[in-house]
Amino acid sequence: MIKFIIDNNELTITYNNETVFYHTPRRPVFYLGHGTENIESYRGNFEVDDYIEQRIGLEKFTRNDDVVTFYHQDISLTVTFKETNNRLQLSFKSSNGFNRFWMRLYATEEEKVYGCGEQASYFNLRGRNFPLWTSEPGVGRDKHSLTTFYANLQDRAGGDYYNTYYPEPTFVSTRKYWLHVDTYAYADFNFKHKNFHELFFWEVPKEMVLSFKDSYLNIINDLTSYTGRPPKLPEFLQEGMILGVQGGMDQVLEYLKTAEENDINVSGLWCQDWAGHRYTSFGKRLFWNWVLDESHYPNLKENIKTLNKKNVQFLAYICPFLLEDQSLFTEAKKAGYLVLNNQSKTYLVDFGEFYCGILDLTNPSAFEWYKNIIKTNLIDLGIKGWMADFGEYLPVDCKLHNNIDAKLMHNEWPVLWAKCNYEAVKESGKLGEVFYFMRAGAHGSQKYSTSLWAGDQSVNWERHDGIASVIPSALSVGMIGNPYTHSDIGGYTSLHGNIRTKELFERWLEMSVFTAYMRTHEGNRPDENFQFHHDNETMHLMAKMTDIRHRLKPYINALFEEATEKGYPVQRALFLHYEEDEVVYDLQYQYLFGSDVLVRPVVNHGQTKQEVYLPKDEWVHLWTGEITTEPGLIEVTCPIGYPPVFYRKNSKYNKLFKSITETYHYEKEAFK
Amino acid sequence: MIKFIIDNNELTITYNNETVFYHTPRRPVFYLGHGTENIESYRGNFEVDDYIEQRIGLEKFTRNDDVVTFYHQDISLTVTFKETNNRLQLSFKSSNGFNRFWMRLYATEEEKVYGCGEQASYFNLRGRNFPLWTSEPGVGRDKHSLTTFYANLQDRAGGDYYNTYYPEPTFVSTRKYWLHVDTYAYADFNFKHKNFHELFFWEVPKEMVLSFKDSYLNIINDLTSYTGRPPKLPEFLQEGMILGVQGGMDQVLEYLKTAEENDINVSGLWCQDWAGHRYTSFGKRLFWNWVLDESHYPNLKENIKTLNKKNVQFLAYICPFLLEDQSLFTEAKKAGYLVLNNQSKTYLVDFGEFYCGILDLTNPSAFEWYKNIIKTNLIDLGIKGWMADFGEYLPVDCKLHNNIDAKLMHNEWPVLWAKCNYEAVKESGKLGEVFYFMRAGAHGSQKYSTSLWAGDQSVNWERHDGIASVIPSALSVGMIGNPYTHSDIGGYTSLHGNIRTKELFERWLEMSVFTAYMRTHEGNRPDENFQFHHDNETMHLMAKMTDIRHRLKPYINALFEEATEKGYPVQRALFLHYEEDEVVYDLQYQYLFGSDVLVRPVVNHGQTKQEVYLPKDEWVHLWTGEITTEPGLIEVTCPIGYPPVFYRKNSKYNKLFKSITETYHYEKEAFK
Repeated sequence: MIKFIIDNNELTITYNNETVFYHTPRRPVFYLGHGTENIESYRGNFEVDDYIEQRIGLEKFTRNDDVVTFYHQDISLTVTFKETNNRLQLSFKSSNGFNRFWMRLYATEEEKVYGCGEQASYFNLRGRNFPLWTSEPGVGRDKHSLTTFYANLQDRAGGDYYNTYYPEPTFVSTRKYWLHVDTYAYADFNFKHKNFHELFFWEVPKEMVLSFKDSYLNIINDLTSYTGRPPKLPEFLQEGMILGVQGGMDQVLEYLKTAEENDINVSGLWCQDWAGHRYTSFGKRLFWNWVLDESHYPNLKENIKTLNKKNVQFLAYICPFLLEDQSLFTEAKKAGYLVLNNQSKTYLVDFGEFYCGILDLTNPSAFEWYKNIIKTNLIDLGIKGWMADFGEYLPVDCKLHNNIDAKLMHNEWPVLWAKCNYEAVKESGKLGEVFYFMRAGAHGSQKYSTSLWAGDQSVNWERHDGIASVIPSALSVGMIGNPYTHSDIGGYTSLHGNIRTKELFERWLEMSVFTAYMRTHEGNRPDENFQFHHDNETMHLMAKMTDIRHRLKPYINALFEEATEKGYPVQRALFLHYEEDEVVYDLQYQYLFGSDVLVRPVVNHGQTKQEVYLPKDEWVHLWTGEITTEPGLIEVTCPIGYPPVFYRKNSKYNKLFKSITETYHYEKEAFK
Repeated sequence: MIKFIIDNNELTITYNNETVFYHTPRRPVFYLGHGTENIESYRGNFEVDDYIEQRIGLEKFTRNDDVVTFYHQDISLTVTFKETNNRLQLSFKSSNGFNRFWMRLYATEEEKVYGCGEQASYFNLRGRNFPLWTSEPGVGRDKHSLTTFYANLQDRAGGDYYNTYYPEPTFVSTRKYWLHVDTYAYADFNFKHKNFHELFFWEVPKEMVLSFKDSYLNIINDLTSYTGRPPKLPEFLQEGMILGVQGGMDQVLEYLKTAEENDINVSGLWCQDWAGHRYTSFGKRLFWNWVLDESHYPNLKENIKTLNKKNVQFLAYICPFLLEDQSLFTEAKKAGYLVLNNQSKTYLVDFGEFYCGILDLTNPSAFEWYKNIIKTNLIDLGIKGWMADFGEYLPVDCKLHNNIDAKLMHNEWPVLWAKCNYEAVKESGKLGEVFYFMRAGAHGSQKYSTSLWAGDQSVNWERHDGIASVIPSALSVGMIGNPYTHSDIGGYTSLHGNIRTKELFERWLEMSVFTAYMRTHEGNRPDENFQFHHDNETMHLMAKMTDIRHRLKPYINALFEEATEKGYPVQRALFLHYEEDEVVYDLQYQYLFGSDVLVRPVVNHGQTKQEVYLPKDEWVHLWTGEITTEPGLIEVTCPIGYPPVFYRKNSKYNKLFKSITETYHYEKEAFK
């Protein structure tokens, strides 16, 4: 129920007896204004400068039933409040001529906030502001790290704590509501203020939706019934792992053989270079013309069938960029399917030593054409999954088929790209059987991205862009309805002196068991970095970890069902199940894998002991069977292969967990 | 003559037929607003975050003679225009409740702008914004340098291009006017816009003054007749050099002896540690209790007399901070002369391993007391000069005697400190005989700082904080009426792996001949860095350079007279004398020393040839006598000891310059 409480010039608006807005003439809820932005971009990194020329508080208001007009002189914003599906829905209509909009949502001092897309640095967003603009997240993402220093120096690519592939004006508050603002315009959500959240946009949004629920799980359920949910991930992702390998059919079969000889459960071979590759100064790059490279992958269709017989799937790669002067580029250019520049010529994007055209996803014919490329060049070959890369690069100085300012389409681009993949799979009748993984996201990815991956972490231990960063990334996307995500085992970006070590690979591997699925990546410079086949001990660990994965299958299958039916994330913040425990709201490097498994991955070099916080429950340590019943911090020994993992004693899957403890008991196995 | 041209809703205001303001309803000249700042400080480095809540354009206006009221609804700003002393003077009065003020001054696209205090990175300010807030300028001052990276990491002390000890809301435009806004509030002058300059302040200023003149020299003359001018610098600074030495009387006399034996003209010994010293992790620091350290400098008064007999002066050091629990601190605390914190206790500033109280310069009794300290503890001993250090540190969270918000006093502090020194010297009857040098500055420094020094450069070749940076620093302060400045020969800050080399010292030395005066500094870590007495070749160069300085004395004396009579800076931008030459407006690393000498110091490591731009004139190369009559770039050989220097052939001092050429002719002397 919506209530409007007017007291002199003050207005309090409540929904289900919770305050949503508190307006006074001195502290208006809405501001309109005008700004001029300057956006510089450099290979997916954007420098945004916003010059605000006007910011006018709408200090007065008039109310007419559920319509409130906030105004200042002749400048007004009309807000219509209604209740739809037990949600509060606001629609906005403003005077003309304003391109900046601020809204202050009522907040309490102790409130915490989560979401806003994928956030790799901070899970609880309170105390900081978060510009929402899809981009490369940056290398290092921390101006205090040398990695970021050199990335900025060479490529303006260092990034900052808020840079993300997947921003979304959607969050969950500990006041037990979720909120989404219906716009893809540049936004900045500021959670620094004690008594309000200030949400800022480069347009007057059309709508806003807000919904209070009695629990966080119900919040996620409700939010995902609004956003939509992805199809269930294919069964083969529940058990073994995907090997990210390259080099042509003979080479990848050789890797598979090595893995099998070492008892590793392999569910798939992910061969990014199915369309060919090239080398640049950055490292090994793909050949961006999405047509099978027959010379490296001859008879792929037949080979896939052979692989399938032993339950190994073949996975590939595609992105919405087309390599200049190659077959798809030429065809698309001729048909007018490519994005144009301001001179109405094909817009060419510099990817570092090569240039590509951009598929115009706003052009329905181009969209259909690309769907058919996906169907024909990928699905028809028997390919069961792919990385659907990019989505976050759309330049702002290009011309689109739909004639909408590219600046306003920029944040929507990832979901258009997701939808293109989704429809290709759906129209092939293979939702739930064929999947893909994306790093870029937007409102709608909840439904149209069959899964996410956390992007291109540095192959190191740095907090903001190394192994640790994939945990808050998973928790934040999970809060806003993306149940399936994972990360490159071992990380990806090897630049500025960062080289992947065996230790890093193994720590990432053991964590990945307790995520939606397990997939390795060779990284951008395969030859200089540690690879799984370099080391027998590592392959032994892979055998163990994929065996554990296999044993967990019934549990994982249940998580996948919950994900698709209710939107519950596979990796969950602890407070989703332990709402009463105040401590858990600030934990961002430990999580629940489903409701019954608690994981605190080791994310520091050389660490052998780890503190873990256990909320009130009966917890069984996976590697020893020791039971802890008192809530609080405990210290756990955690050699490689034994990440701190606990299961709930009263889990209905406890036999399954127990079998793992029995087989891989710490004393039997450790340091063998 | 002031004209108001009204055309519908537009208003153009001209002065002497030059447009000053162009107002339209869509692009108002004035904006009022409200903001909340958050200022964090760390040892003189400030992080300023400004949250603008309202910014309202005053789009309408009414005029009544020379009074124009700009308004928006009931918000108004009344601007009174009048002509005073051939200057346009504006006074402002606004509605209550606004703490943010923006003004847009008419600008042309080709216009250039100089000044805003001391600017070490960019002389021409166009295309950038310049926050005006006195602070440490930073170490490195360039986020692309490792020096800055490490300075930020360890101490948040890296700085940026605009950080300065001496900001001032005063500038000179190539539209041939100077402008000053009468406020010490935080400001940000934005010169990025094509058709206007946006001047922003944290209060509604009281007044603004603007004056058009027919030449830049007349602009400076007029500006300094407004600001006041300093007394002429003492004669002894015209000839020899000041040696910055420490270690007690015996030690400094030893250094003097070494210098004399090497034929160096020494005019003064600057002994910072006259009050004692201590070591911290930063390096060698002074003992901040401004009382003679009799154990290290026994019989100083007598010793000074002895030194004076051979024309050597004794110089010292003082700053407005008092070391905790030492005699001056205790006396000042008892008398209530120290700045208080919010709990009304003595505010203690952390200087890194020691704490100090701050003399409350707003307390007239404290001001008098400190003047007397200067008179008694310095002047009465026969001390002829000192570094009057600091001025830029005033914290914003302290309580001052005058009850004005410390945030509004922060930028004024340097000039209060300058005035304290000025009055001490003046009341001793020694203006022109005793001098001091300051790094911090504010409006009023033109009169009250007898001279400036450029602060604590890094002992390296980095552009934004190394040797080069002292040139734009000198040119910018010169533009707004500070004729006398100089810098530490060899630089000061040796941190983060930067160690002063012989080459750097020698390049700095040879440049310093062509500045107001020559003074060395041992730096913050004397033992690790190159010192003049380490090397006979260096001392030979010092002998040569001080001999040249001595030969230049009549010319330098004329510059000093011009400085004090007309405000002309000793180091001048070329366009002050070559207005017609468009090239010279963008030169920031070469300058004129007076009107007749052109200097292009060598500011890069290992450089032996240097391009120099010569404007249209007859130029004689100082080291060869070669004459150039064509304007343009020429390349000059410049081994150490032969910086690119030219004099005007028709200078009335040309005999003097010629004698230098004859004695130190390149072929005779080079590489000996």
